[in-house]
Amino acid sequence: MGDEAVTEDRFLGGRLVLRQPRQGYRAGIDPVLLAASVPAVAGQSVLDLGCGVGAAALCLGARVAGLSLTGVERQADYAALARANALANGQAFFVHEADLAALPADLRARAFDHVIMNPPYYLPSRATRSDDPGRGAALFEDTPLATWIDVATRRLRPGGHLSAIQNAARLPDLMAALDDRLGSVVIRPISPRDGRDATLVIVQARKGGRAPARLAAPLVLHKGADHPGDRDHYRPEVRAILREAAALDLG
Amino acid sequence: MGDEAVTEDRFLGGRLVLRQPRQGYRAGIDPVLLAASVPAVAGQSVLDLGCGVGAAALCLGARVAGLSLTGVERQADYAALARANALANGQAFFVHEADLAALPADLRARAFDHVIMNPPYYLPSRATRSDDPGRGAALFEDTPLATWIDVATRRLRPGGHLSAIQNAARLPDLMAALDDRLGSVVIRPISPRDGRDATLVIVQARKGGRAPARLAAPLVLHKGADHPGDRDHYRPEVRAILREAAALDLG
Repeated sequence: MGDEAVTEDRFLGGRLVLRQPRQGYRAGIDPVLLAASVPAVAGQSVLDLGCGVGAAALCLGARVAGLSLTGVERQADYAALARANALANGQAFFVHEADLAALPADLRARAFDHVIMNPPYYLPSRATRSDDPGRGAALFEDTPLATWIDVATRRLRPGGHLSAIQNAARLPDLMAALDDRLGSVVIRPISPRDGRDATLVIVQARKGGRAPARLAAPLVLHKGADHPGDRDHYRPEVRAILREAAALDLG
Repeated sequence: MGDEAVTEDRFLGGRLVLRQPRQGYRAGIDPVLLAASVPAVAGQSVLDLGCGVGAAALCLGARVAGLSLTGVERQADYAALARANALANGQAFFVHEADLAALPADLRARAFDHVIMNPPYYLPSRATRSDDPGRGAALFEDTPLATWIDVATRRLRPGGHLSAIQNAARLPDLMAALDDRLGSVVIRPISPRDGRDATLVIVQARKGGRAPARLAAPLVLHKGADHPGDRDHYRPEVRAILREAAALDLG
């Protein structure tokens, strides 16, 4: 991808700088929130399924030192950017160019402490396809959500955590895709303003978990009830996540 | 059931008085919230699956005049109380004593505008069974949740609404039980205090609905962060639902 086709964007208050396609799928706050929610500690292994340019994995690596980070991305240009982003930010991040439904044998032989994912938010039948193939592949579901969850579950060690962020409208599909191998489910709605519908959900589950599911209070992004230009009106706890690399506690 | 074994309890600020077993399963605020959430209008038909002593159906009938109310209850003593409660409150409520998984033929021939349910909250394997058979049957799942949803869906007319209230811990199971016949899902968490996990969820869906699912902001029951005796600390909108028979808007 030529230099003119990418932008350099600051995340976590500049702790991370990511090159990403100017026209394609661009990381917003979603992978940052996902990374903040992952309860990883030094020495653990993390697999990012569909890692794109590496936003979630590298945000997590910027917050928690000493992780072993692995990514899977089927689009070659995004995989190449993910590798370049890891290098430029001084992080070790091993990115496999592969379809998640056909992982290479060496990955299939491994079990991870954490699998994280930010799968496509829209069903192809429900929305217009993007003109940009990279953006389209990132936004519109091709591999079924149930396959994402199944592949993630297989790659978790017993007791390992799955963390996913999705469109709140897909919560029923996401819940339906969880099977008996996963438990201790925590659902954290994310809503733009107090009293509004959630737009996103973070869902976390443990392989072999036995605790009852929890539906946590929403993380509300912005102060106040109106919308006077978002950027400077994040709530303090959200600002801390986005700008100071704070963790997002699921309780 | 002898008179000494039942209590008379006021609901909706006294608009409804219900006789219910002193020792068995006793209706709390859950069926009242369920009834408040049902978007029924005069002239419509409502089926209450597992109606118990009729709390949900009769609360709905007290709020919306001119409904045709039908209930199904497999426990004879609860069905008898439901009939007596309807009569005592001047409502027409036809209660079939039947297992919801084996509805009588005349019910199976009907389609309803609304099906409502407050199914058992607990899996038998996860909790101790109650010593009281009536209470046990109301609290502990015997008929699978998926069967409740399937029976409800079959009994809805196209475009009809399913409304359910459940333990928030069962949200994944509830979502997994919704199939392609239902859409336009709305999930409304109910939490005791601001910032706390939801304890209950109301889920509404339409037969043949095509709108994206919505995860609404929680209904928060109590004011403040502490717990100084609940009864007089309901938030005004909750008090209006519980005492003034106000509707619960799912947005």
